[in-house]
Amino acid sequence: MSETHRSGSDGPLAIICGGGNLPLAVADAVSRSGRRIVLFALKGWADPASVARYPHHWARVGQFGRFCRLARAENCHEVVFIGSLLRPSLAQLRPDWATLRLLPRITALFRGGDDHLLTGVAGIFEEHGFRLLGAHDVAPEILVPEGQLGRHPPTERDSKDIERGLALIRAIGPFDIGQAVVIADDRVLAVEAAEGTDGMLARIADLRGAGRIAGPGRIGVLVKATKPAQDRRVDLPSVGADTIEAAAAAGLAGVAVEARGAITDDLGKMIRAADAAGLFVVGVPARSREPA
Amino acid sequence: MSETHRSGSDGPLAIICGGGNLPLAVADAVSRSGRRIVLFALKGWADPASVARYPHHWARVGQFGRFCRLARAENCHEVVFIGSLLRPSLAQLRPDWATLRLLPRITALFRGGDDHLLTGVAGIFEEHGFRLLGAHDVAPEILVPEGQLGRHPPTERDSKDIERGLALIRAIGPFDIGQAVVIADDRVLAVEAAEGTDGMLARIADLRGAGRIAGPGRIGVLVKATKPAQDRRVDLPSVGADTIEAAAAAGLAGVAVEARGAITDDLGKMIRAADAAGLFVVGVPARSREPA
Repeated sequence: MSETHRSGSDGPLAIICGGGNLPLAVADAVSRSGRRIVLFALKGWADPASVARYPHHWARVGQFGRFCRLARAENCHEVVFIGSLLRPSLAQLRPDWATLRLLPRITALFRGGDDHLLTGVAGIFEEHGFRLLGAHDVAPEILVPEGQLGRHPPTERDSKDIERGLALIRAIGPFDIGQAVVIADDRVLAVEAAEGTDGMLARIADLRGAGRIAGPGRIGVLVKATKPAQDRRVDLPSVGADTIEAAAAAGLAGVAVEARGAITDDLGKMIRAADAAGLFVVGVPARSREPA
Repeated sequence: MSETHRSGSDGPLAIICGGGNLPLAVADAVSRSGRRIVLFALKGWADPASVARYPHHWARVGQFGRFCRLARAENCHEVVFIGSLLRPSLAQLRPDWATLRLLPRITALFRGGDDHLLTGVAGIFEEHGFRLLGAHDVAPEILVPEGQLGRHPPTERDSKDIERGLALIRAIGPFDIGQAVVIADDRVLAVEAAEGTDGMLARIADLRGAGRIAGPGRIGVLVKATKPAQDRRVDLPSVGADTIEAAAAAGLAGVAVEARGAITDDLGKMIRAADAAGLFVVGVPARSREPA
């Protein structure tokens, strides 16, 4: 499938870039594969220095009409969304005319969780003639692989915490909620919702500082996985060296992510960070997520 | 059943008092019913002024031998735990001799969630000849009743959020996790785990302050309910005027608690706080928690 996507038969690939290093990682990978790309950099999110390395246009969140016009002029038919973008509020949108006409529908999409919003936005792109691809479809090298990734292995206790975390993520899947939980010694310490993974890990660090999490030494696992209903084209969870550092600051023993269900901008850097901090990092096979 | 408990045939009731106003509310209610009580006040948690109003002993968390000795000398056979007590760390315990002998077992109880810990501790009391009762068994007036409790009714949208919140609490029940969630306009904003309800509501206030929760005006509901597996004798969720104030500070529209599944030290004060702040407060029938 990725061969087809990389063939270039559909013109250059439009990459809509949010924040972080993932957009450049994807742009580099697709570019290496020989396909032309055009970046659509989101103002306030995308990194100008990275964007400058490729043909690009700047746009604001909400300028859907501008995107359609420019992408068609560039002969782009396939689109990838990649990079961080905090859920904007409706009030923060600066809609252009095309977006304004869609506003009643967009307002309805804002009622509900992230999946609901993202899947709806994806649908709008498709209706306007763009084919939406997952970043991992065009750049499979960003997917986290399976197995023990760093030097440190999880203990048996850690492995039990990982299983419990995956089961919890499965149970909350229908509620279109965060993709991460923290489990320590069979106890659920945190469930991610609107605060995001960084916010959740900062909370664990605070609780530990206040003596509300027992035990000396590193304990607990950050578990990240896709939700059952997730549209993998627009919302795979991402991890990186910063995730490892936040987990280390929270006193955790390691990080487990669903193999091929999470993406990273720099696997090597993430592994080096884990090795240096003494944390394990593992890619957990998706089959662990099947109901027992 | 409560008649039996209030008969006094089993000697005075031992009330182990944690923090907050609930211990005094329970002591007053049982005392009014004519049964003698002896308070066992936990140092660092129980309020000295309240405790002084009844026959009492002070003890530290972990002085199980001291409790057994004193309770037997007072001819107490029935015990109630009531009041707040943050999960202590094992290191914070100052175990006496009886507790030391139980330490391997207590250490095992500390592995896992609150239910696991509390149910295990309850079992230890029972094995030593004490009958453990729920505070609401001896003082049913502390249970939150069913129906619209204040002046403000929930909107239809709020009612949908309440149903979603109850369904989510049911889904996470097997994971021995917090008893509260926040839902706003069908979106799950927060799930309580180790941080407690106050910590969760403070987080919502922060997210709102940072513009990460859309919309002007009050929106969202705090939903509190018992977990399916919860030992109701030791761990019913509690709410009060402070809960309303924290929900108001988080910008929520109201608070929904499971009727007869949550306790309060002062229902009238809680309702007045809700009316004054413009929030609704409702007791939701337990039948709403049945699977659809």
